[in-house]
Amino acid sequence: MSNDPLVVFTPSGKRGRFAVGTPVLTAARQLGVDLDSVCGGRGICSRCQITPSYGEFPKHGVTVTEGALSDWNAVEERYKSKRGLKEGRRLGCQACVMGDVVIDVPPESQVHKQVVRKRAEARQITMDPAVKLFYVAVAEPDMHDPSGDLQRLRDALAAQWQLEDVQIDLNILQGLQPKLRKGAWQVTCAIHLGQASTPPRIVEVWPGFHEEPIFGLAVDLGSTTIAAHLCDLQSGEVVASSGLMNPQIRFGEDLMSRVSYSMMNPGGAAEMTAAVREGMNSLFGQICAEAGITRADILDLVVVCNPVMHHLFLGIDPFELGQAPFALATSDALNLTTREVGLDLHPSARLYMLPCIAGHVGADAAAVALSEAPDKSKELLLVVDVGTNAEILLGNTDKVLACSSPTGPAFEGAQISAGQRAAPGAIERVEIDPVTKAPRFKVIGSDLWSDDPGFAADTARTGITGICGSGIIEMVAEMRLAGLLDASGLIGSPEQTGSDRCILDGRTYSYLVWESEDRRITVTNRDIREIQMAKAALYSGARLLMDKFGVDHVDRIVLAGAFGAHISPKHAMVLGMIPDAPLDQVTSAGNAAGTGARIALLNREARALIEATVREIHKVETAIEPRFQEHFVNASAIPNAVEPFPILNSIVTLPDVSFNQGGDSGGGGRRRRRG
Amino acid sequence: MSNDPLVVFTPSGKRGRFAVGTPVLTAARQLGVDLDSVCGGRGICSRCQITPSYGEFPKHGVTVTEGALSDWNAVEERYKSKRGLKEGRRLGCQACVMGDVVIDVPPESQVHKQVVRKRAEARQITMDPAVKLFYVAVAEPDMHDPSGDLQRLRDALAAQWQLEDVQIDLNILQGLQPKLRKGAWQVTCAIHLGQASTPPRIVEVWPGFHEEPIFGLAVDLGSTTIAAHLCDLQSGEVVASSGLMNPQIRFGEDLMSRVSYSMMNPGGAAEMTAAVREGMNSLFGQICAEAGITRADILDLVVVCNPVMHHLFLGIDPFELGQAPFALATSDALNLTTREVGLDLHPSARLYMLPCIAGHVGADAAAVALSEAPDKSKELLLVVDVGTNAEILLGNTDKVLACSSPTGPAFEGAQISAGQRAAPGAIERVEIDPVTKAPRFKVIGSDLWSDDPGFAADTARTGITGICGSGIIEMVAEMRLAGLLDASGLIGSPEQTGSDRCILDGRTYSYLVWESEDRRITVTNRDIREIQMAKAALYSGARLLMDKFGVDHVDRIVLAGAFGAHISPKHAMVLGMIPDAPLDQVTSAGNAAGTGARIALLNREARALIEATVREIHKVETAIEPRFQEHFVNASAIPNAVEPFPILNSIVTLPDVSFNQGGDSGGGGRRRRRG
Repeated sequence: MSNDPLVVFTPSGKRGRFAVGTPVLTAARQLGVDLDSVCGGRGICSRCQITPSYGEFPKHGVTVTEGALSDWNAVEERYKSKRGLKEGRRLGCQACVMGDVVIDVPPESQVHKQVVRKRAEARQITMDPAVKLFYVAVAEPDMHDPSGDLQRLRDALAAQWQLEDVQIDLNILQGLQPKLRKGAWQVTCAIHLGQASTPPRIVEVWPGFHEEPIFGLAVDLGSTTIAAHLCDLQSGEVVASSGLMNPQIRFGEDLMSRVSYSMMNPGGAAEMTAAVREGMNSLFGQICAEAGITRADILDLVVVCNPVMHHLFLGIDPFELGQAPFALATSDALNLTTREVGLDLHPSARLYMLPCIAGHVGADAAAVALSEAPDKSKELLLVVDVGTNAEILLGNTDKVLACSSPTGPAFEGAQISAGQRAAPGAIERVEIDPVTKAPRFKVIGSDLWSDDPGFAADTARTGITGICGSGIIEMVAEMRLAGLLDASGLIGSPEQTGSDRCILDGRTYSYLVWESEDRRITVTNRDIREIQMAKAALYSGARLLMDKFGVDHVDRIVLAGAFGAHISPKHAMVLGMIPDAPLDQVTSAGNAAGTGARIALLNREARALIEATVREIHKVETAIEPRFQEHFVNASAIPNAVEPFPILNSIVTLPDVSFNQGGDSGGGGRRRRRG
Repeated sequence: MSNDPLVVFTPSGKRGRFAVGTPVLTAARQLGVDLDSVCGGRGICSRCQITPSYGEFPKHGVTVTEGALSDWNAVEERYKSKRGLKEGRRLGCQACVMGDVVIDVPPESQVHKQVVRKRAEARQITMDPAVKLFYVAVAEPDMHDPSGDLQRLRDALAAQWQLEDVQIDLNILQGLQPKLRKGAWQVTCAIHLGQASTPPRIVEVWPGFHEEPIFGLAVDLGSTTIAAHLCDLQSGEVVASSGLMNPQIRFGEDLMSRVSYSMMNPGGAAEMTAAVREGMNSLFGQICAEAGITRADILDLVVVCNPVMHHLFLGIDPFELGQAPFALATSDALNLTTREVGLDLHPSARLYMLPCIAGHVGADAAAVALSEAPDKSKELLLVVDVGTNAEILLGNTDKVLACSSPTGPAFEGAQISAGQRAAPGAIERVEIDPVTKAPRFKVIGSDLWSDDPGFAADTARTGITGICGSGIIEMVAEMRLAGLLDASGLIGSPEQTGSDRCILDGRTYSYLVWESEDRRITVTNRDIREIQMAKAALYSGARLLMDKFGVDHVDRIVLAGAFGAHISPKHAMVLGMIPDAPLDQVTSAGNAAGTGARIALLNREARALIEATVREIHKVETAIEPRFQEHFVNASAIPNAVEPFPILNSIVTLPDVSFNQGGDSGGGGRRRRRG
C-alpha cells in the first residue's frame, strides 16, 4: 500500500495514497476534497477541472514527474478539441493517478466555492444553493421487470447521486418520457434539495447534459422599492440587478396607510396583492431582458420583506398587523412555489420566504441578521436598518435581541421643508464653518463642494433641489457643532448665533442654507423637530435593547439599508441617533436585507441557520415598554439629555449654548457637561 | 390502588382500575380503548358517547350500582337539552368513574369503526381516513412573546392532538386569521394525515366546532364509464353513487384507439385529458346535487384506473403505452391536489392515485388486489377482472402474480352479431333443452323466462333486442352442453344436431335463438369464434400465471368487474374461460376496483399496504411469454384442448360431438375424454 502514489490536493492540503489508475475525481471524493461534478465523472460537464503541478515540492515531500498523470484519453481529447481547456488543466474524472502528484483544485472547480463579498468584515458566502443540477444515466424500460420511467430515474439519482426519495412536480412528470428518450436515457435534472426535513424534488429535466446556467433571484421587497439580484446558481455570481418602485405606493406611501387602505376598502388587500405581484413580474421581465435569459431559466426565488409586505405579497389581509397585539398570520419561513403566488418564472420555480421575527420585525430584519450575523459576533454588535420603520438588532454569541422603532419618513426626506429623495441635485454632504457659520455642501451628481470653483457650472444641469436624508443628518449635526442649534433643538437668533443666516420664521428661526433667484433652501425649526423625533425613536429602540441586554455601550455598530450606507457616523453620533461608539467601529452594510436574501438563495444551510437564529432571537415590543418613552424623551435632546457619549466628546466639542427664550433649556445641555 | 373502581369496556373487554373522578374518555384512552373524540373532551362533539350497564356481571366479576358514574354535569345537561342523547347514553368526556362500572362503546363512537361490506368473504374496512377533523383551542397572540397565529395553531395541534410538524396550504393560511377570531380562538381543522413519510397538512379551518360531515370520493375511472362513490369520511357510509359515460369515448371506443388518436392528432392527448377531467367534474356536480352537498364539502379523492386512463387523466401522453416495452411514466402511487389536475372540489382537496402494477396492469388492478387481497389468502386465489383488457391476479400469502390479457370487446357484446350492452331487452340468461334443442331465456327488465306465460306482455315495452355479455357466455356454453356446438367451436348442421334451429349461413351454421316479425336473433359461427378468442385470451393469462406459480389448479376464483357479477360460474367453466374449480368457490366481487378505491379512501394504512403489495407483486408480460401462445391455442377449444377440467366433468357431461366436415375436429374432443 505504501508503494501507491501519493496524491496531494491544494489548497486543501488533503493527501492520500491511491492505486495506480485511480481517477483524480475518485481520489478527491475519497479524501473529501471539494471537487465539483455535474455529469458524475463522464467527461461531459468539465466541472472537475484540476491543474497538476510538476517538479519538486519539498513542502509536501513530493517530486512530481512528467508521467504523474495518465495520458489524455479519447474522452478528454474530445472535450478539449470541442470546448477547449485552459492551458495546464485536465479533467479530474479522466486523468488518472500514475505517480506521486500535487493537484490544485481551482476555485471554479469547487462545489462549495466562496462567493466574494465586498466588505472586509462580511463573512463569505459558501455555494450550496437549494436548486442544483444532476446528470444521470437512467436504466431503459424492461418488459420483464416493468417499472415507471420516473422510478428508474429515481433509482438512478439514488445510485449515482445518493439522492433518496426524490419527488417530482406533476408538470415535470408530464413531459418526462419524451425527454428521457430524446436524451438517449441520459438527462440533467434540476433538483430542489430543500432542507433537512423535505425530500429532494425534481423541478426540471433536460435531455442529455444541460450546458446552460440556471438562475435564482434574491428579492428585497420594500414598501417603496423592490430590488432584485439575479444570481447564477452555479457560480454564485450576480448576473444582473434591477429595481422598481413598489406599485403599491398608489395605495399609500407608508405601511400603515396601506393597512388602512385595506381596512377602508373591501377587496383592498387583494388589489394591493395583485399590484405587488404584477410589479414583481414586470421587474423580473426587466431583469431577464437585461441578462438575456428567459423567465423559465429562473428556478429559485428568495424574498425578504417587512411583515406588512410579507402578508400582502402572500395574499393575506394585513388587518391584524394594524392593531395590537400585531399578530402575524405566520412567522415561520415558508417554502412555496412561485406559481402559488402568481409569479411568472419557471413553472416549477421555488419560493423561499425568510421567517419574520415579530409583527413589526419582518423577514427583512431576519435577512439583515443573516447577513450581519450578530449571533456570530464576539463583540456586542448593534445593527440598525434605517427606514420608515427602523429594525434594530443587538447581540453577540450569547444572545440576540430585536425590536423595531417607528422612525417615520423624516430620514427619507419626507416632512422636511426642503427634504427630498436621494436624487441628483439633492444636498448630501454638509460642513458648516464654526466661525462664519456658512455652510459648504455637496449635491448628488457632482464631486465638487459648493465653495469649489466650477461648482455652479457642474450643478447647472441638476440644480440644487433640496436636502436628502443623509444630508439632513449632516446638516443638523453641523448646525449643532457650529453652535447654531442648542441641545434642546432650538435654532438661535442672529443675535444669539452671530449669523444672519438665522432668520425669523414665524415664532422660531430657520437656517438659510442656500438661495438662488427662484429657490431658497432653509432648515426650519420644525424640520429640526421632525429629525429629533425620528432620531429619538431610533436611539430609544437601540437603548431599550441595551437595557434588556444589561449593557450601557456597544462594541460595534452596523448601519444597514441603502440609506444607512450614506450616513456619516460622526454626524449620526452628534445627532445622538446611535449610541456612543468608536467612529471606526461604525460601518455601513449597504442593503444588508438584500444580501441576506442572496445568502439564503446561494446557501441552503443558511436557511436552516436563520430559522434557528430567529427562533432564538428575543423580541422586544417597543410599544409596551414604559422605558421606551423615557428613552425617547431623553433622546429628543441633541445628542441626548442624560447619556454621556464620552467617545463622541473626546472627538468633538459641542458648544454649550441654549437658545430657550424662556430661560431653562431643559436638562440636556447641562447634564451633558457631566459626561 | 386496588380500592380504585374497576372499569370494564365492552366489546373490547379491556379493563383497568381508575381513581374516582376519572372521566370515562380518559380511562378509555389510557387502556387503548377505541373511543372517538373530535373536540378533545370538551363536551361539544358527542363522538365519545358510551352506554353504562348496571347490575350484576358475573362474567366480568363486577356489580354496577346506580352511582357508578358521576351525575350529569352542566356541560352534559346542556348538550342533552340542545342536541339530545339516546336513552342510556352518556358523554364519555363528562361522565366520571365513581364505582365499578361496565361501559359499552357503541360502534358509532369508535374511531376505527368497521364499515360493513356486503359479501361474506370480504374483509371489513376499518375507518382511518386520510382526512380527519380536529377541534383545538389556540393560544391568543401575546405582544410579549410574538408568534404567528399559525405557529400557535401548530402548537395547539401538537399539544392537544400529538400532531407534529403540521403544514398548511397557502390558500388556507390566507383565511386563517379571521377564522381564529370568529371562533374565539377555537377552530376545527380538517387535516390531511397523509402517510408515514409526509407531515400532516391543514386543508381547511372552520371557526368553532364544525358540525357538518366532510366527504371523500372513490372513483373508478374506466375506459367506458366513470363510477364515483361519495363517502362520509367520519361514518364511512356511502352517501351517494353515480356514474357517467367516459366522454373520451368520442376519441375511440377502446384504449388502443385512444392511444392511436393521440399519436395521429397533435394535441390529441391534451384534448382527451380535458375531456375526462370535464367528465369527472360534471359527475362530481351530479353526485353533489344528489347528496345535497357542495363541491367544497369534498376534501379527499381516490382514483383508480388502467394505465392509459391514468396517464390521460394526469395529462401524460400515453404514447409509450401503445408500444413495447409499454413503459409507464410513473408506476408509484401519487399524492397530489385535485386542483393540480383541474378538478373542482374543495380548493385544498387531496388526490390519491393507487400505484400501477405494470404498463398493462393499472391502478385498477391494484385496487382489485386491495379489495380481494390475494396476498392475505391462505387458499390460492385467482382474481379475474373481466373487461376489454382482463386483469388477472393469482396468489396467496406466499406471493402474488399479475398479468393482463387482451380479451377484446366480445364479452361486452361488441363484435357479436346480436351483441349489445347490458340494457333492458338484452338476453342475459339462457337454457337450452338438450332434447328439443330449444332455448328459453330471460331478458334484462323482466323476471320471467321466455316460456313463462305473460313473457311477451312483460317484455313488450323493451322488446328483445340482442344478447349481452353474460348472455352470450351462457348461450355458447348451453349450445355446447346441448350438443349444438363441438369442442372445436363448430355449430352442427340440422342433420348433425337434429335441430332445424341450426341454419346454414354462408359456409357455416348459425343457431336461431329467437325471431319476431321484424327481428331475428342468431348466434353465428363467427360469433362463436369471437367468444373463443376472448375466453382463450382470458384463460391463457390465468394459466400462464398458474405455470409461473407452479400449480395446475386454484382453490378459489373471484370474478371482478361489473360484468363479472353477472357471469354464471358453471357456464364460464363449460366455456373454459376460467380454470376448473369447485363451483361454490367461484364468486363475484362486483366492482372490486371501485371497492379498492373506497378502501383506500377510508383507510390510509391501506394505501401504504397496497403500495407495498404492488412492489411485491410479480408482473408477467403475456406478450413476451411463448407459453401464452401455446395456452391460447389450447384454450381455443371448448372448454380446452388439453386441460382435463375434472371438477367440471363431475358436474356436467359434455356431449362428444364433432361437426368438422373435413374429418378430424382437432384434439379437443378426444383428449378431454381422458380427464
